[in-house]
Amino acid sequence: MKRVKLIVAYDGTNYAGWQQQPNAVTVEQKLNEALTDLLGEKIEVIGASRTDAGVHSLGNVAVFDTDTRIPAEKISYALNQRLPDDIVVQDSCEVDADFHPRYCDSIKTYEYRILNRKFPMPEHQRNTYFVHHKLDVDQMKAASSYLVGPHDFKSFCSIHAQVKSTVRTIYSIRVSKEEDIISIRISGSGFLYNMVRIIAGTLIMVGSGRIKPEQMPQILAAKDRQKAGPTAPAQGLTMIGIEYL
Amino acid sequence: MKRVKLIVAYDGTNYAGWQQQPNAVTVEQKLNEALTDLLGEKIEVIGASRTDAGVHSLGNVAVFDTDTRIPAEKISYALNQRLPDDIVVQDSCEVDADFHPRYCDSIKTYEYRILNRKFPMPEHQRNTYFVHHKLDVDQMKAASSYLVGPHDFKSFCSIHAQVKSTVRTIYSIRVSKEEDIISIRISGSGFLYNMVRIIAGTLIMVGSGRIKPEQMPQILAAKDRQKAGPTAPAQGLTMIGIEYL
Repeated sequence: MKRVKLIVAYDGTNYAGWQQQPNAVTVEQKLNEALTDLLGEKIEVIGASRTDAGVHSLGNVAVFDTDTRIPAEKISYALNQRLPDDIVVQDSCEVDADFHPRYCDSIKTYEYRILNRKFPMPEHQRNTYFVHHKLDVDQMKAASSYLVGPHDFKSFCSIHAQVKSTVRTIYSIRVSKEEDIISIRISGSGFLYNMVRIIAGTLIMVGSGRIKPEQMPQILAAKDRQKAGPTAPAQGLTMIGIEYL
Repeated sequence: MKRVKLIVAYDGTNYAGWQQQPNAVTVEQKLNEALTDLLGEKIEVIGASRTDAGVHSLGNVAVFDTDTRIPAEKISYALNQRLPDDIVVQDSCEVDADFHPRYCDSIKTYEYRILNRKFPMPEHQRNTYFVHHKLDVDQMKAASSYLVGPHDFKSFCSIHAQVKSTVRTIYSIRVSKEEDIISIRISGSGFLYNMVRIIAGTLIMVGSGRIKPEQMPQILAAKDRQKAGPTAPAQGLTMIGIEYL
């Protein structure tokens, strides 16, 4: 028996998110089907980030246990033959039996992309959120700096989420603009439900002049979801990768 | 009566190319339908670049004549409401009645994109061509320089094309690499059928070590399609834009 770790990239457009669920096609389900078919054993992966419907990934992590004699490094190649084109395993390797993708300490990185121009551009349609009024990137940068560090992010968490603590640590936020695309790249110890999309939605309000950067401490202190901006749409969000410590 | 010029961006994945044809959905057809619906007159656009099935565009050009009272600048907004998400008009303006998108002198720019890494990446699947063996970009750059200038590009033209002359002028070719994407950007007075894709296919052979840069003059001189590399797949090609002189 060995435990195998996969790095999984996907275009989330056609999936109802990561997590297996009845009456919907999910990334986890496609992986389980392909692995079960490849290895001839019933496989159920454990995913690191259970991304929502429409969210993309360059490097989500999943593990599973198997008795196969296929070397772990070879699994990626054989698995990609059995997966649809919009899910591609980037790497497979053996890990310790006690490695767990959610419970081991890690730095997770997400990126939210905004296409900011007069008209949408088809080539960016699937993985950006289109905003046509001009956003002030400097104001968005200024606002983002208030979020770095350990904070209670209750104001940035969807209200139906049930978690013991809403304290999380953001290690870095980088807001940058290249041509017409504004990227918000966030690394942290972990994220609450919809937290990155609510941060993105709030920074878009800042870029639009509807929230001032100096209001960010109050929004955090309020611990009230109503004080932050809207949840930005799923298609702008990409899970970049996870570094285990 | 006025003549209106459109700048048209599209994701070519779901279209049988630009040009209207029976039993297939094309970009030209979608534009004609949307314009006819918007303006209440039968409209047939004239396109600058009749891109092939699967080829994308950031800035193809089309014109049409109309009696509408809608100001030319407003047409883009109303038209985008009637077009599918993968076709977006970027600009509309009035032009002289004798302006013709194909017969007026212009500099056309295309880009061919190659995703060069171990495994495909879903976010780039629709507008790159995936090559997994490592390409030598310096060799590709060296080879591309031989193509700049006026040349008889008969070796780089699909054999069923019927044109009077196969001489064309390439003003510039820039081969560059950013992360895993190699871009070949070519500007010229005009291009023969499949010319950019055959140049891309030939430069991929060079990057693979199967053709030497110094062989390029011979390939040009042969005036023989068999001497150049294969026609690279359509999905890697994007029509960037057209500058009228």
